[in-house]
Amino acid sequence: MIHMIRLIKYVIRLLPIISITFLTAQKIDTKNVEVSMVKAMEWQEQHPIFTSAPTDWTNGAYYVGVTKAHESTKNPIFSAALKNMGYQNEWKPWDRFYHADDIIISYSYLYVNEIRKGMVDLEPTERFLTDHLYKPHPWREGIEGKDQQILWWWCDALFMAPPVLTVYSKLTNDRSYLDKMHELYLETYDLLYDKEEHLFARDIRFLWKGTDKDLKEENGKKIFWSRGNGWVIGGLALILEDMPKDYQHRDFYLKLYKEMAAKIKEVQHSDGLWRTSLLSPESYDHGEVSGSGFYTFALTWGINNGILNKKEYTPVVTKAWNALQNCQKENGMVGWVQDIGASPEPASADSWQNFGTGAFLLAGSEILKLGN
Amino acid sequence: MIHMIRLIKYVIRLLPIISITFLTAQKIDTKNVEVSMVKAMEWQEQHPIFTSAPTDWTNGAYYVGVTKAHESTKNPIFSAALKNMGYQNEWKPWDRFYHADDIIISYSYLYVNEIRKGMVDLEPTERFLTDHLYKPHPWREGIEGKDQQILWWWCDALFMAPPVLTVYSKLTNDRSYLDKMHELYLETYDLLYDKEEHLFARDIRFLWKGTDKDLKEENGKKIFWSRGNGWVIGGLALILEDMPKDYQHRDFYLKLYKEMAAKIKEVQHSDGLWRTSLLSPESYDHGEVSGSGFYTFALTWGINNGILNKKEYTPVVTKAWNALQNCQKENGMVGWVQDIGASPEPASADSWQNFGTGAFLLAGSEILKLGN
Amino acid sequence: MIHMIRLIKYVIRLLPIISITFLTAQKIDTKNVEVSMVKAMEWQEQHPIFTSAPTDWTNGAYYVGVTKAHESTKNPIFSAALKNMGYQNEWKPWDRFYHADDIIISYSYLYVNEIRKGMVDLEPTERFLTDHLYKPHPWREGIEGKDQQILWWWCDALFMAPPVLTVYSKLTNDRSYLDKMHELYLETYDLLYDKEEHLFARDIRFLWKGTDKDLKEENGKKIFWSRGNGWVIGGLALILEDMPKDYQHRDFYLKLYKEMAAKIKEVQHSDGLWRTSLLSPESYDHGEVSGSGFYTFALTWGINNGILNKKEYTPVVTKAWNALQNCQKENGMVGWVQDIGASPEPASADSWQNFGTGAFLLAGSEILKLGN
Repeated sequence: MIHMIRLIKYVIRLLPIISITFLTAQKIDTKNVEVSMVKAMEWQEQHPIFTSAPTDWTNGAYYVGVTKAHESTKNPIFSAALKNMGYQNEWKPWDRFYHADDIIISYSYLYVNEIRKGMVDLEPTERFLTDHLYKPHPWREGIEGKDQQILWWWCDALFMAPPVLTVYSKLTNDRSYLDKMHELYLETYDLLYDKEEHLFARDIRFLWKGTDKDLKEENGKKIFWSRGNGWVIGGLALILEDMPKDYQHRDFYLKLYKEMAAKIKEVQHSDGLWRTSLLSPESYDHGEVSGSGFYTFALTWGINNGILNKKEYTPVVTKAWNALQNCQKENGMVGWVQDIGASPEPASADSWQNFGTGAFLLAGSEILKLGN
Repeated sequence: MIHMIRLIKYVIRLLPIISITFLTAQKIDTKNVEVSMVKAMEWQEQHPIFTSAPTDWTNGAYYVGVTKAHESTKNPIFSAALKNMGYQNEWKPWDRFYHADDIIISYSYLYVNEIRKGMVDLEPTERFLTDHLYKPHPWREGIEGKDQQILWWWCDALFMAPPVLTVYSKLTNDRSYLDKMHELYLETYDLLYDKEEHLFARDIRFLWKGTDKDLKEENGKKIFWSRGNGWVIGGLALILEDMPKDYQHRDFYLKLYKEMAAKIKEVQHSDGLWRTSLLSPESYDHGEVSGSGFYTFALTWGINNGILNKKEYTPVVTKAWNALQNCQKENGMVGWVQDIGASPEPASADSWQNFGTGAFLLAGSEILKLGN
Repeated sequence: MIHMIRLIKYVIRLLPIISITFLTAQKIDTKNVEVSMVKAMEWQEQHPIFTSAPTDWTNGAYYVGVTKAHESTKNPIFSAALKNMGYQNEWKPWDRFYHADDIIISYSYLYVNEIRKGMVDLEPTERFLTDHLYKPHPWREGIEGKDQQILWWWCDALFMAPPVLTVYSKLTNDRSYLDKMHELYLETYDLLYDKEEHLFARDIRFLWKGTDKDLKEENGKKIFWSRGNGWVIGGLALILEDMPKDYQHRDFYLKLYKEMAAKIKEVQHSDGLWRTSLLSPESYDHGEVSGSGFYTFALTWGINNGILNKKEYTPVVTKAWNALQNCQKENGMVGWVQDIGASPEPASADSWQNFGTGAFLLAGSEILKLGN
């Protein structure tokens, strides 16, 4: 009997190792991808979280993941969650018209509007977008001595507002939304994009002015935040997905996307996951899921759309996805997500956030289309 | 060691087969029925879904199941869900006073009102019912060239409004609700009931006029939709449950119920589950859970109330329930539910809907009372 | 093969016994405590329940448990639930300004206000408290021939309002809240505290007047309700936690706490759990979780704060916690909770209530700090 128990215990202890080995040695098992995605979503729905309100950017980013999960799988478990969320929130963005963060939730509303005619009240989104683009606000002009030099003064903003504007432009068939978006996007690009490193500074605090006060990592490198750049390149994939092929400034986004993709590929860790500080992996030497999820999404999207070289990039995203999946607990929880922040900080197997789950779902939604 | 793993794998692979065999060979295990019901409800609560709003007919039908599950088990896990739902919905039916679909949610409100005095605001239900019965609307008179020839122009309506009217009549001790219901019920009966087949056409599109345009199955038979007839006979059980024994038109409902019950029994598939097209099982040759759940509920109710022959019908519902239970996944999800529709369509092990869970709960609630 | 199955079955059947033995033989395993707490909370969140509204005392008491669980573990899974709940309830207490039950939910709001500046609307709490303390109401003066002789006429009230007043006094740095609280507290103490037994009668119905009509247990003893006294001593721990060390009446609460603690220790059952009727354990001879949870919380708090003798009380609470944990099902549900009531009644392995889960979480939150 005792013998028996020992044997069983041994087998049970072995199981995770067996399955991990199995996964990384193999190609992507797509059935398994969808199962992981469903579990991640179910766990997240059972653990509602937000920083300010259910319509804030944390949920906004999460539901972009749910949106893409539905688009990719057509599994009604995802659309049910989207409709329920939008209905409860009365299809409203959050409060601050000048704040890009507060409109990303509408990305999901616009999707529900597409799959279910007549259900979504688009008026609050419409009003927000108009105010966001045109209503006077100090941020727009820049505040002396503050970080807010432009409307989209932090790189995360490039995920929060531009994809919504792109979809809304498509829906209304009105390119003026794209034109205005491009104007604002260029402001951020000019302010924060590092043309040598091909990465975005999170905000002006991380720009180098050649003085002693420049923020740097211990290894002397500039601080490029993984999630921050994840917001940008993830946002670029979303923008390019819905931007008309013949839009006059499309090439700008395409070029930027490719440049960043190459760099992201370059700084991937050998275990498949990116570190929170891209040029200083040793700062917190473990994979982080929100940044890695956005990268996996963005790069796989590029492969799937013939923009990135399939042969070159497929091993990158396959390895990344398998590593992401190992950050998911048996109960569905996606761990190793850096908490809300503005620069590299550590994560742990137990640190989760809705937007981390969102990044995981985004990654899965494109991985599913990879084929083998 | 390898040997050991193989053995364990073998046992695990065998388990479902063992348990299925075990179940069908045995009578109903009532402890097990309640466990299945609780799991079904828990899964459904964790996956809120609706087509138009949380108070629409899909949730309405689901919560009829939860209501009957509570009535039958007295397990507070069901009443907690009912109270929570009603409170969140402010005890309101959905919007359209003329649409039978929009009042079925009140079936649950009326039940909560019974088990918890003073909690439920009955005013919105009351107002809806009065408007529904008397307020002018084009459907009532019939719209030229459209399916809406009468207020209850589709057979599903016989589940959506009449049971609510019956309970409300009982609560207010006012038979005028029954009288008006009977008038409307007869209109539908006259329009859609097939007196030869003892089944309801879903709506006038499925009636035969003896022309080439008559809709028919590939085998040449009329199209009788399983769920559609499930709505009718399930509704009849609900109506008869609360209709006074001495109500003047009770015999009409009793006769209709018995006629349909005999036919339903006749067209059961040997595996225990009904096909979506009752007279053309080969169209989609697999069991479908929403129709089968309503049938199991309705027939078992008849046995439990001494209306159907116990000896004759018990094997029918026992086999049906065991087959229904095999459509439930380990996590509680009830599969094999045909999606929202108006005529036979296929289902799959992964297709679920709240009203399917409702039908499952209804079935279980009567199966529990069967005894062995 | 058959042999194999038998062996596996045997092992599986043995597992609970093995783990129970293991637990009681060992000291507290703190990692395991937090796991139990998270599971209890997750199950409860998935099974929302209330008696009158989501802001009533049942949820109020539950969320006091969630609050302390977060304070103790800092696990964001608890704060996420608190924020979500408060946001959905618009940070409102329930309706009746004169009813102590309706303000306990604000205990959690005040905590969220502490951990998340600017999120909580404190106005509804503020208004309730002022009205509660000063607005005229029949209960305040006492109603002739009714139980309501004073505002806090039942002992449960001492958990519902005083801890909220204490925290609010601390927040506003205004001791007038404490002074008024003390005045009301003394009224209840004078009316219901049994100075010989060192326990509270639930309300005046349970006081002895020396007549034949005195309510008593079959064994001739007075009826002292476990949960009722759990409310009081649990409330005392909460009050003492936040009452300034130099508050003029602090010693009254300290003395009362110690007196009750000694009595509670005395009437613990050898299996670690208290019976619903403290002086008549044989009435319902099984452990009950809500009372036992409050006792475990209160006594452990006393040990952790150097008020109770560590050596003397640690075995009491260790045994109690291990027994409490055995009342939790594998899925997280905390059973053996007496239903809503006002005097001893039986419970079962399947009887659960949100406030029972709250008591469990409170117990765990202090047990975690015990150290070994």
